[in-house]
Amino acid sequence: MPTEIPPLLLAPLAPVTGTTLQQQLYQRIKQGILQGQLAAGAVLPGTRQLASELQVSRNTVLNVWTQLQAEGYLMSDRQGSRVTPLALPAGQVDDDTLTRWPLAKRIDVFQRRPWVDTGALPLRPGIPALNHFPVAAWRRALSQVMSHTPPQLLGYGDPLGDAELRTALAQHLRITRGVRCDARQIVITEGVQQALMLCVTLLSNPGDPGWIEEPGYRGAKAAFRAGELNLIPIPADHQGLAPQPGHWKQAPPRLIYTTPTHQYPTGAVMSAARRLALIAAARQHRAWIIEDDYDGDFHYHGDPIMAMQGMTDNAPVIYLGSFSKTLFPALRIGFMVLPAPLVSRLTPALHQLLRGGNRPEQQALTRFILSGDYRRHLGKMRRLYRQRQELLRSELQRAAGQSLPLLGGDSGLHLVLPLDSHHNDAVIACQLHQAGFAPAALSEFYLAEPVQQGLVMGYGNSSDTQIIAATRQLSRILSWPG
Amino acid sequence: MPTEIPPLLLAPLAPVTGTTLQQQLYQRIKQGILQGQLAAGAVLPGTRQLASELQVSRNTVLNVWTQLQAEGYLMSDRQGSRVTPLALPAGQVDDDTLTRWPLAKRIDVFQRRPWVDTGALPLRPGIPALNHFPVAAWRRALSQVMSHTPPQLLGYGDPLGDAELRTALAQHLRITRGVRCDARQIVITEGVQQALMLCVTLLSNPGDPGWIEEPGYRGAKAAFRAGELNLIPIPADHQGLAPQPGHWKQAPPRLIYTTPTHQYPTGAVMSAARRLALIAAARQHRAWIIEDDYDGDFHYHGDPIMAMQGMTDNAPVIYLGSFSKTLFPALRIGFMVLPAPLVSRLTPALHQLLRGGNRPEQQALTRFILSGDYRRHLGKMRRLYRQRQELLRSELQRAAGQSLPLLGGDSGLHLVLPLDSHHNDAVIACQLHQAGFAPAALSEFYLAEPVQQGLVMGYGNSSDTQIIAATRQLSRILSWPG
Repeated sequence: MPTEIPPLLLAPLAPVTGTTLQQQLYQRIKQGILQGQLAAGAVLPGTRQLASELQVSRNTVLNVWTQLQAEGYLMSDRQGSRVTPLALPAGQVDDDTLTRWPLAKRIDVFQRRPWVDTGALPLRPGIPALNHFPVAAWRRALSQVMSHTPPQLLGYGDPLGDAELRTALAQHLRITRGVRCDARQIVITEGVQQALMLCVTLLSNPGDPGWIEEPGYRGAKAAFRAGELNLIPIPADHQGLAPQPGHWKQAPPRLIYTTPTHQYPTGAVMSAARRLALIAAARQHRAWIIEDDYDGDFHYHGDPIMAMQGMTDNAPVIYLGSFSKTLFPALRIGFMVLPAPLVSRLTPALHQLLRGGNRPEQQALTRFILSGDYRRHLGKMRRLYRQRQELLRSELQRAAGQSLPLLGGDSGLHLVLPLDSHHNDAVIACQLHQAGFAPAALSEFYLAEPVQQGLVMGYGNSSDTQIIAATRQLSRILSWPG
Repeated sequence: MPTEIPPLLLAPLAPVTGTTLQQQLYQRIKQGILQGQLAAGAVLPGTRQLASELQVSRNTVLNVWTQLQAEGYLMSDRQGSRVTPLALPAGQVDDDTLTRWPLAKRIDVFQRRPWVDTGALPLRPGIPALNHFPVAAWRRALSQVMSHTPPQLLGYGDPLGDAELRTALAQHLRITRGVRCDARQIVITEGVQQALMLCVTLLSNPGDPGWIEEPGYRGAKAAFRAGELNLIPIPADHQGLAPQPGHWKQAPPRLIYTTPTHQYPTGAVMSAARRLALIAAARQHRAWIIEDDYDGDFHYHGDPIMAMQGMTDNAPVIYLGSFSKTLFPALRIGFMVLPAPLVSRLTPALHQLLRGGNRPEQQALTRFILSGDYRRHLGKMRRLYRQRQELLRSELQRAAGQSLPLLGGDSGLHLVLPLDSHHNDAVIACQLHQAGFAPAALSEFYLAEPVQQGLVMGYGNSSDTQIIAATRQLSRILSWPG
């Protein structure tokens, strides 16, 4: 018996590019139900009758009915198909509703400083010479991997990372950085940031004191904040992290973040005495030291400063590194070296939290290391960066017309120009940014009140011309003679 | 005046491959100091004198002295170079010391079930057809990106991910999954696991109730555990997640993890009524819903089931997806779609926690999507998976000699074979693993006591031959007639 068909259903269906008549009918009924035009319990017409009214094939209507039933919009019984009763959203939902919903409390402690994309502008710290990266050799390594490896390589591998890469890396770290490790201790991560987050998740509890260097690396603070650690700024001086007995007494740390080879950003090398004292005190307090060796591969005077991790047996040190500066940041491959006694304790959690990373890229990296291409590239870049640093240093001194107390420079990709306290380094950095240069303001690296103004100047990705132009610009801003 | 030279320093230096005389001398003195053979305050011989004794150039000794001074092992004054007093590790450090140190408390709640690498074995759930992936086309896309893009692409990009990929993805999700979004709402992640961890970090506090499906996805539980959520198992039935009024009352959630398109692992499609009721109740309780659309792209009957996210305006839904099943797992590209009102609230934290992922891979993916290669591949795989599922289904029924109550199959890459309660599914899964097949035991997906034994059988990466062999093996284990 023909039902009275709701007028909504009877509007003609016309061909529209990119959508079928069936999809049109499906959308019409679904939206009609969701918007309340087809009421709960309303009986829909028979498929034969509707098909005839709409001049479509009965199969079209049947398919739509099947789909709507599968999704639960229609119910069928002997009387035909009826609209399922649904908890429809009450009227127009306020657009702003969700803006007032609670988020994680830790969101509030993330600094609200807007992120500025400084891309690969000259003087930006921490960027290697991108146009000197051997793209062709890398492409070749990647292409060889993709064409010669079995399909299994596209699936999930060891959650801790590709075994061959871990072996090659252990060997490389032992020789070049004095790290005491074997492949089992190495966990491949998506850069240092993920490694930091893992350290926090695996080794600390919310509320635990976490020491960070003052001034210090912002990424470490972000990771500590994500884990709701109680951030304790520990002053770093010309010999690196300098905790006082009071620090150990009043805020004994669970985690200590440090950059002993080249303090970030001041460039200080932590002395052997400080290193051993830190390890001894950490042992006493059962604190874990996170050693971030972010740019120790580029060392310009004598032999490289070796890792703190390798100074004693079983140091309570998690050593972190990445290929962001030795190859390129967008590669997103980093790693952590766990103390051997932690491997079996942490593996169950790591197996559940990690998925092993991008295996083809990891295998390409292994080829790059084993072929010697990696060491050759490091050597070339070391020479280039040394020249660039010398140029930046001499240009700054020349423009200033005096000897400048530049900080750092034993290794890495940046120098710090300290500024007198009457300067506002954030304003100067902003002025330089407007001129196309992106040094960082030293004050941004402080958790408490900044005690030193300055500019953190990256030279890794800055050509000679850019270094000269940047110095000229800075000279104008600071009213230097040159 | 010649000093008496400690005998340690006088052993002859002989050329050794891979190390210079200078490095040998440096290591000898450094280790002598660290191991206490050269005592604190001990005066070292003059460089000229030592060079002559060791028959090396004076520069070699001078360089070693400079290095050791830079690292803080030696101090220099008018009397010459002396060993710095250092806090040496007291005797032999107990190898086991660190094994007793405290770790994060959450470590204990990670299940101690050892991880078994099932690689890409047939029947492993969640693995796409790896040998059907168009490696050549992908390699071409990647190679084109690497050869035609400026060096800046190798640097850091937008922490939320490549803008072009986010635009292409928003378009794709609107059309194929009914997701209401624009590019600004999309955050590119290293797979769904990272997206889950971010949801936990950004939207919940330790101790908050977090609802998970019972049975449900283990990765979601790992992420909730990492954030110290209070995991509440909510039964999932043939219409998906089925919370009762008591759940809302006694453990009102902060986060709800759900797989409405294809419940993992049971394969249920959440009905429209359940979806709208869940959204309405979540609104009332200010709970965030995490919709994991892990395999909704492969749908075999009628049109695909659209995302819950798109059912109403401003649903409190964070939609997650990845390319692990549509392309390949080792790609490690996933994404989250934030509700529009959350974008500006979460961006400062996201800017600090993320580094933008692998940009060349993201650009290759964009090319793959825009060229139509991606949709073509999806279409091909949909047909392949439908055939494989049909074969698995018919082989199982044939071998069992009866109609089996298989669960799921409307979409995705797996079927569930329920087993009678007198079976132990973990034992059967283990027996199959020994025979080279890797289905998962359904009981492993339960947080509380399993209420149903069964096998979760992936067919995505299983050839016809493998499906037939696996069924035969299972038939033997279960003493089926076939």
